Amino acid sequence: MKLKGKALIAQGGGPTAVINQSAVGVILEARKHPEITRIYGARHGVNGIINENFLDLTDVPTANLEAMAASPSSGLYSTRDKPDEAYCKKIFEICKAHDIRYFFYCGGNDSAGSCQTVAKEAEDAGYDMYVIHVPKTIDNDLQVTDHCPGYGSAAKFVAQAFAGVDLDNRALPGVYIGVVMGRHAGFLTAAAALGRKYSDDGPHLIYLPERTFSLEKFTSDVVKTFEEHGRCVIAVSEGIVDESGEAIAAKFTGGEKDDYGNVQLSGSGALGDMLADHIKKNTKIDRVRADTLGYLQRSFLGCVSEVDQVEARTVGEMGVRFGVGQQKSGSVTMKRSGNYAISYDLTTLDSVAYDAIEMPDEYICESGNNVTDAFISYARPLVGTLAEATLIDAPSVEKILNK
Amino acid sequence: MKLKGKALIAQGGGPTAVINQSAVGVILEARKHPEITRIYGARHGVNGIINENFLDLTDVPTANLEAMAASPSSGLYSTRDKPDEAYCKKIFEICKAHDIRYFFYCGGNDSAGSCQTVAKEAEDAGYDMYVIHVPKTIDNDLQVTDHCPGYGSAAKFVAQAFAGVDLDNRALPGVYIGVVMGRHAGFLTAAAALGRKYSDDGPHLIYLPERTFSLEKFTSDVVKTFEEHGRCVIAVSEGIVDESGEAIAAKFTGGEKDDYGNVQLSGSGALGDMLADHIKKNTKIDRVRADTLGYLQRSFLGCVSEVDQVEARTVGEMGVRFGVGQQKSGSVTMKRSGNYAISYDLTTLDSVAYDAIEMPDEYICESGNNVTDAFISYARPLVGTLAEATLIDAPSVEKILNK
Repeated sequence: MKLKGKALIAQGGGPTAVINQSAVGVILEARKHPEITRIYGARHGVNGIINENFLDLTDVPTANLEAMAASPSSGLYSTRDKPDEAYCKKIFEICKAHDIRYFFYCGGNDSAGSCQTVAKEAEDAGYDMYVIHVPKTIDNDLQVTDHCPGYGSAAKFVAQAFAGVDLDNRALPGVYIGVVMGRHAGFLTAAAALGRKYSDDGPHLIYLPERTFSLEKFTSDVVKTFEEHGRCVIAVSEGIVDESGEAIAAKFTGGEKDDYGNVQLSGSGALGDMLADHIKKNTKIDRVRADTLGYLQRSFLGCVSEVDQVEARTVGEMGVRFGVGQQKSGSVTMKRSGNYAISYDLTTLDSVAYDAIEMPDEYICESGNNVTDAFISYARPLVGTLAEATLIDAPSVEKILNK
Repeated sequence: MKLKGKALIAQGGGPTAVINQSAVGVILEARKHPEITRIYGARHGVNGIINENFLDLTDVPTANLEAMAASPSSGLYSTRDKPDEAYCKKIFEICKAHDIRYFFYCGGNDSAGSCQTVAKEAEDAGYDMYVIHVPKTIDNDLQVTDHCPGYGSAAKFVAQAFAGVDLDNRALPGVYIGVVMGRHAGFLTAAAALGRKYSDDGPHLIYLPERTFSLEKFTSDVVKTFEEHGRCVIAVSEGIVDESGEAIAAKFTGGEKDDYGNVQLSGSGALGDMLADHIKKNTKIDRVRADTLGYLQRSFLGCVSEVDQVEARTVGEMGVRFGVGQQKSGSVTMKRSGNYAISYDLTTLDSVAYDAIEMPDEYICESGNNVTDAFISYARPLVGTLAEATLIDAPSVEKILNK
């Protein structure tokens, strides 16, 4: 007999364009299980749980859910709280008080860690409860799963942003630096390459947190590219590090730390500006511009991967199948086959909870300033349909006066 | 009898998402006129003319043209050259050498000025030539016309960007500052308001170059909004000025000037960072983030107003009707009627060439930190279909332990 009680859904960490798909996947599937007495949503993730800030989602009209599913950002709101053991104990106690027997938490590896601690608190107290981690992160840095819901849509935004600014840079040539989100993993920055079509399309250079960043090498790379193409488009991860392993951006953002001890990298244009200034001062190139793509990467309204949408919905739905249907705890994973099909499985919480992954070496070219075809093969299916740009193809006219 | 000879098309100034629609409108319409012997395109605007850097567009396949029309940025490439009289004389001489009798130039008011000077050079030399200015600018600051092709698509990008980051700001509350392009006119920054749907949707504050910006007033506005909503989303024009009328951003970007004498404002995150730092230091608000929307506003691939596309195509087509069909020089304009229909007309080059316009007072609210409904009514039809986001609407659950 299956465990009877309430289901609770919450969203943690940075929003994505499809995290609501996962939440709605959980809610709609949970409605089909008679063991689920009510479906609660916590406002602001785990913070909403300890404050009993719950919404009753049991009877929300399906049309409202579907409209929210299609909206970016975390519709139940999020939190940067990183629960310690005492915090997780409180989560468990609140769950117990409300007869919550199924807990679904959408988040990254830290959220998987919270899931694990809460599950252990429940177990230690002899309280039957299943805890499911529903993966999401634009960083694409979770273990076990082939990739993470949220990444494909952010990657699509980055790919289309660089495809567009590359055209802009053709029209008004110079150096363009675009700074992309990603603290330790370069997957999102690498996605800047996915919109390349013509052989001389940018980004011509891509700098990832997986390789030590040197201003000297950067400068010579830029000069070399500029000499070849008369212009240079560059994608730089906000997480690039110096020889000591310190994030270069951290020197410019005032050192503000979040609850995870992470120094603020996003929400500032300082890294891009520093790099642009360096090129202006150390080369003869006149026109140097830097953009920091910022929060639009995860929240822009109207740029979403249809593949990512389907997968995000499905990890939520499968989470309920595993948690309620199979009476298990764990983290939902995706497995790839062929080019390209996905099957869903469950792994243990502890296999996801701790270390995050980085880009494998095979995705980074030897010179450390670009991505390989293996990366393109890996990432291209995830972004779904990409908008495409076309250059004009016309013959030149013979000169008369300037012959 | 109509003047026989070649047609020349060129694109100047900052790219837009639909400037290629205008170019293709010119090319396809010019192909229908037997007076047009060949159709040339200048690479990099007027710079391409004086260097005789011409493409022969006469026989480019229509499918290639249509694909280019759907691509953002200036497909013929652009220039920041601002022709003086000697430069315009050279333009005219090159046109004469190539038997160019019709010149179509897509650009802003400076480009209209170049058109006028070239037309005068031709007239003074007794060389028959018609010069048509095809309007484009994301700044929407041209005289006579109701609005400018290019604005609607950039406005759509800005509206959807702010609609998205507003959801992000709901999920992780704090202060969010988004810096928007626009040197003297606030139209594009004002477009941040077009994605608002719920009564407490941001941007809650909008700062335009038409009003003097005060850091003190800004700070108190932010604190007041934060007290009311627990969060604050702000759209700021890169062109905001202090009491002396100087652009505040100019203090941070190194003072680089273009050929028009304009100090660089875009391509740097410094203004946003300064405003964020000011709020961090002068209020008790913890989480303050700034994004500078940058070149994506005019070049992002895959965000275009379908209304803007049609209008940009049509101003190009009508340019040929006026220039070739009616044997006139001038600037193509759009006139609005009802809600919403557009008719096309021709005005004199000098009525557009000089002063640019700013946002009229009726579009700016009295406190100077937001836009009026009149602005929304004016701008909403221009962006076409807007993506829409939906919040969840569910009842709260009664607390048990925290009662």
